[in-house]
Amino acid sequence: MCELLGMSANVPTDIVFSFTGLMQRGGGTGPHRDGWGIAFYEGRGLRLFQDPSASVDSEVARLVQRYPIKSETVIGHIRQANVGKVCLSNTHPFVRELWGRNWCFAHNGQLADFAPQFSFYRPVGDTDSEAAFCELLNRVRTAFPEPVGVQVLLPVLIRAAQEFRRKGVFNCLLSNGDWLFCYCSTKLAQITRRAPFGPARLKDADVMVDFQAETTPNDVVTVIATEPLTDNESWNLLRPGEWSLWRRGECIAHGQTGE
Amino acid sequence: MCELLGMSANVPTDIVFSFTGLMQRGGGTGPHRDGWGIAFYEGRGLRLFQDPSASVDSEVARLVQRYPIKSETVIGHIRQANVGKVCLSNTHPFVRELWGRNWCFAHNGQLADFAPQFSFYRPVGDTDSEAAFCELLNRVRTAFPEPVGVQVLLPVLIRAAQEFRRKGVFNCLLSNGDWLFCYCSTKLAQITRRAPFGPARLKDADVMVDFQAETTPNDVVTVIATEPLTDNESWNLLRPGEWSLWRRGECIAHGQTGE
Repeated sequence: MCELLGMSANVPTDIVFSFTGLMQRGGGTGPHRDGWGIAFYEGRGLRLFQDPSASVDSEVARLVQRYPIKSETVIGHIRQANVGKVCLSNTHPFVRELWGRNWCFAHNGQLADFAPQFSFYRPVGDTDSEAAFCELLNRVRTAFPEPVGVQVLLPVLIRAAQEFRRKGVFNCLLSNGDWLFCYCSTKLAQITRRAPFGPARLKDADVMVDFQAETTPNDVVTVIATEPLTDNESWNLLRPGEWSLWRRGECIAHGQTGE
Repeated sequence: MCELLGMSANVPTDIVFSFTGLMQRGGGTGPHRDGWGIAFYEGRGLRLFQDPSASVDSEVARLVQRYPIKSETVIGHIRQANVGKVCLSNTHPFVRELWGRNWCFAHNGQLADFAPQFSFYRPVGDTDSEAAFCELLNRVRTAFPEPVGVQVLLPVLIRAAQEFRRKGVFNCLLSNGDWLFCYCSTKLAQITRRAPFGPARLKDADVMVDFQAETTPNDVVTVIATEPLTDNESWNLLRPGEWSLWRRGECIAHGQTGE
């Protein structure tokens, strides 16, 4: 199993605090030694940092922690390999261009008997996760060769997520830089921080932050993670089958799928 | 104008020496202050480091210089913007997946009246360079929906490069991780280092390296750059219209296009 980290914010926000907690689980407090990656949208551009080695040992991870990159939308992942060997091409998040935007995806879970016929997008590595991402994008492109709004697109995303989930476990984060889509198959937690901001304490490292000192009263920052990253705040635990769509920190749509 | 850097080697080789020289031209000894990027293939995976700020000031560039990443194929670029504003999505190199491989591209030059109709691949940013890359990949995909070998592919690449060159200046580097294709429209220099290795001295920084101490007798490393990076070695200056194809450090095909 792996761990996911997502952020949606209405102002460029650094994710150093949450990333520090997550990285500890990459071979420190957690067993996820098989690589990590994090993608930061910057306008329509995307910065992607990845390493197939454990995040606690990673020189690139230390850069990301030292160098606060501000972004409105972030997707991160640490990996404990089950399908596919440990190498860069199997390291999440995965990125493809669709409709002139960078789409970014990370997955927690495992899919059995998942062998789609790839049309346009094809996996570079050999994970079930990248295969699911390519299949999802191929469905979107087949349904909509030209760009559509996210409300039109949403039913395709939800239907695919629901279908993939039947093949195993499919917790995922997906973004095109404008919105962030989350699907909970078994486990996903979410918190939205807004004024009045307070202090937060990481579960996985002896680190505390006072968000009051780091924010303005109008900031809205939503963080989504496999498990709550702090132990003094109240996280919302998503239900199996629940999906949500975020833009600039706010939930703009959510719902529940059946089995 | 911009500066290009490419490497093809038969063993994973670090490019710190050449990168150090190139980075000096990014706002130090050269005027290319508008971003830089470098992509390292690692198996089928690709590590991409980019920054829209000048390379001499870039924290990410310092990481790349401190942390020797070894790769058999590298494409780097520093930018002096002419078309497209200075931002991450306009920063080379550009990457797309085709046939389940990462294709990577960087361009030096400028194209006039270049407005292709994009089918599948579409630019994320607004440079003529990314537009040319997308158009090139769309042509490849249209000609060959399924993977073909590079010898079959080559005429499509050469024809496109020759045609783009008629619209302005089109020096470029293109790779799928297996081979590296270079096209010289106005300016490109190349050197192949092999045993017996000797010392090399950068033109742009007070740095000397003794390749003898860093290599084994079987190593073959080709470096391609807009201008020679060292001043004590003999670089081969490509002629306008000349193209070459490299694999594991060796030239596997080359030729000359007309006007």
